[in-house]
Amino acid sequence: MSERLTIVGVGLIGGSFGLALKAAGFDGEIVGCGRREQPLERAVELGAIDHWSTDPAEAAADADTVLLAVPMLAMRKVLEQLAGTLPGDAIVTDAGSSKGSFVRDARMLDNPGRVVPGHPIAGTEHSGVEAAFATLFVDRRVILTPTQDTDRQALLRVENLWRMTGAIVETTDVQTHDRLLAATSHLPHMLAFGLVATLAGMQEEDDIFRYAAGGFRDFTRIASSDPVMWRDVCIANRDALLEVLNRYHGDLQALTELIERGDSERILELFQRAKTARDAHVGDLG
Amino acid sequence: MSERLTIVGVGLIGGSFGLALKAAGFDGEIVGCGRREQPLERAVELGAIDHWSTDPAEAAADADTVLLAVPMLAMRKVLEQLAGTLPGDAIVTDAGSSKGSFVRDARMLDNPGRVVPGHPIAGTEHSGVEAAFATLFVDRRVILTPTQDTDRQALLRVENLWRMTGAIVETTDVQTHDRLLAATSHLPHMLAFGLVATLAGMQEEDDIFRYAAGGFRDFTRIASSDPVMWRDVCIANRDALLEVLNRYHGDLQALTELIERGDSERILELFQRAKTARDAHVGDLG
Repeated sequence: MSERLTIVGVGLIGGSFGLALKAAGFDGEIVGCGRREQPLERAVELGAIDHWSTDPAEAAADADTVLLAVPMLAMRKVLEQLAGTLPGDAIVTDAGSSKGSFVRDARMLDNPGRVVPGHPIAGTEHSGVEAAFATLFVDRRVILTPTQDTDRQALLRVENLWRMTGAIVETTDVQTHDRLLAATSHLPHMLAFGLVATLAGMQEEDDIFRYAAGGFRDFTRIASSDPVMWRDVCIANRDALLEVLNRYHGDLQALTELIERGDSERILELFQRAKTARDAHVGDLG
Repeated sequence: MSERLTIVGVGLIGGSFGLALKAAGFDGEIVGCGRREQPLERAVELGAIDHWSTDPAEAAADADTVLLAVPMLAMRKVLEQLAGTLPGDAIVTDAGSSKGSFVRDARMLDNPGRVVPGHPIAGTEHSGVEAAFATLFVDRRVILTPTQDTDRQALLRVENLWRMTGAIVETTDVQTHDRLLAATSHLPHMLAFGLVATLAGMQEEDDIFRYAAGGFRDFTRIASSDPVMWRDVCIANRDALLEVLNRYHGDLQALTELIERGDSERILELFQRAKTARDAHVGDLG
C-alpha cells in the first residue's frame, strides 16, 4: 500500500512541502486540509496535493504521517479535531515556529511516541499556496525537537521526508530551539514590524517612504510577512521572545546613550563588532 | 575649455559618481582625492577618475565643481583644506547623509552661493572604490538641499551632473531631509547594528547565527555597512536621530507590553498596519 501523507494548512510551507516531495518522486498520496475550498482546489491544480478535505479528521483518517503547517494558535484546534480519530500509529509532525507550545498542545493526542515536533527555517515574506515552490527547503535547515517520548522510528520517518525536500535536518531540544529562534527570527520580525509601524505613524508618512532606499526595503521585507502567523508566534513563544526583546531594549538604550553623549569611540567599536560578526557568520550570502 | 570635476573621497559613492559620469559621456576631466595612494591608483585603473592627488587643495585647484564624498566627520577637515585655495566660482557639493552638519561646516568657504548640499539615497553594504559601479544611482533619488544663499546656476549644474548618472533629483530643505533620513535610513542602521551586536553578545553565538534564515540575512545586511561612515552619521545627525530613536523605543516598548499581556488582538492590528504600509509604500520591489 502506498504511503499516505496529510498536510493540514496548505499555504507557503505546507504547499511547498507537497511540491517538494512530488518533485522528489514521493511514492504516495498527499491529502490536503484547510478551512476554505478554493485554495485547496488551487493546491491540487498546482500539484502540491492530490485530494483535499476541509475536515482534519477526514483528511487524516488513513494517514501514515500528518504535517501540521498552520499558524501556531490554530494548532490546538486542529489537534483537538484529530485526537481520538487519528490512526493509532500515525506520525504527527508540524512546521511551527515555536516548539514548546506545540509539545504542550500535542499532549492531547493518544500516542505521544508518534509526535515529532519540527520547524523548517525557511520561508519568504509571501504567504498562501500561490507563493509555494518546490525548492523552498533546499539547503535550508529543518530543526526537529523530539521529546523523551518520541519514537526513534517516527523521528527517522520525518527526517527522511524533510531530506527528500532538500533540507538539512538537525535535532535539538525544545528550549534551545525556542531561545535561538526568538533571537534570530522572532526578534527581527518584531523590530521590522515595529519600525514600519513607527514610520507609518509619523506625520510625513508619504515622504518618509518615498525617501526610503534599498537598505530600507531589505530591512523591512519581513514586515510584509503574514500578520496572523506572527501574532501567533508572539503568543506561543512569549517567554523566550520577551527575554530577547528585553535584552535588545537594553542594548538599544545603551547605544542611544552613546549617541546622546557623542561617544564616537564606543559607537565605532559597537558598529565594528556588529559588522565583524555579521560578515563572519552570515558571510558572502549577501 | 573642458570641465574639471574633483571628487574628494573616491569610495563606493565617489567612485560610482565618476564611473557613472564617464559612462554617460561626461566631457571633462575628473580628479580624485583621497588619503591613500593605492585606492586612487585603483580608481584610475577602474576608470572612475583621470588623475589624483592626496592634497584636496591641489586636487581642486582648477576645479569647476567639487564633490565631497567622505564620511561626515571628515567633511570639516576637507573643507578647511579647501577654504581660501578654491577658485572663487567653484561649486562645492557633497554626498553626505546629514545636511545640517554639512551646511554648518561649509560656512567656512568664501562663496556661500556656490555651496549645494546634496545626498544620493543610494548605496550598498559594501564600501571602497572596488565596490563602485556605474549604475549605482540609476532611478535612485538624490536630494539636494539648497540654502537661501545657494545660487540658482550652481544648483542647476549639480542637478545636471546627478541627472547624467541616471538619478532622480529632488530638492527639499535641510531640516526635512535630516528628519526623513533619520527615520528611513539612520534608524534602521542603528536597529540592525544593535541587533547583530545583541546576538553576538549572547552565549550561544555560533548556534544563533547558524539557525538564521534568509529573513535575518536581509534584515541585517545593512549591519555590514562601513562603521566609520555610520559612526559619523550618529554624530552629525544626532538630534534628528535621537528624536526618531526615542519614538521607536516607545513604540517597541508598547509592543513588548502587548506581548507580555498576550493582547493578541492589538498585536495583530499592529502587524496588519505595518504590513499594509510596507506593501503600499515599498510595493512590489520585493
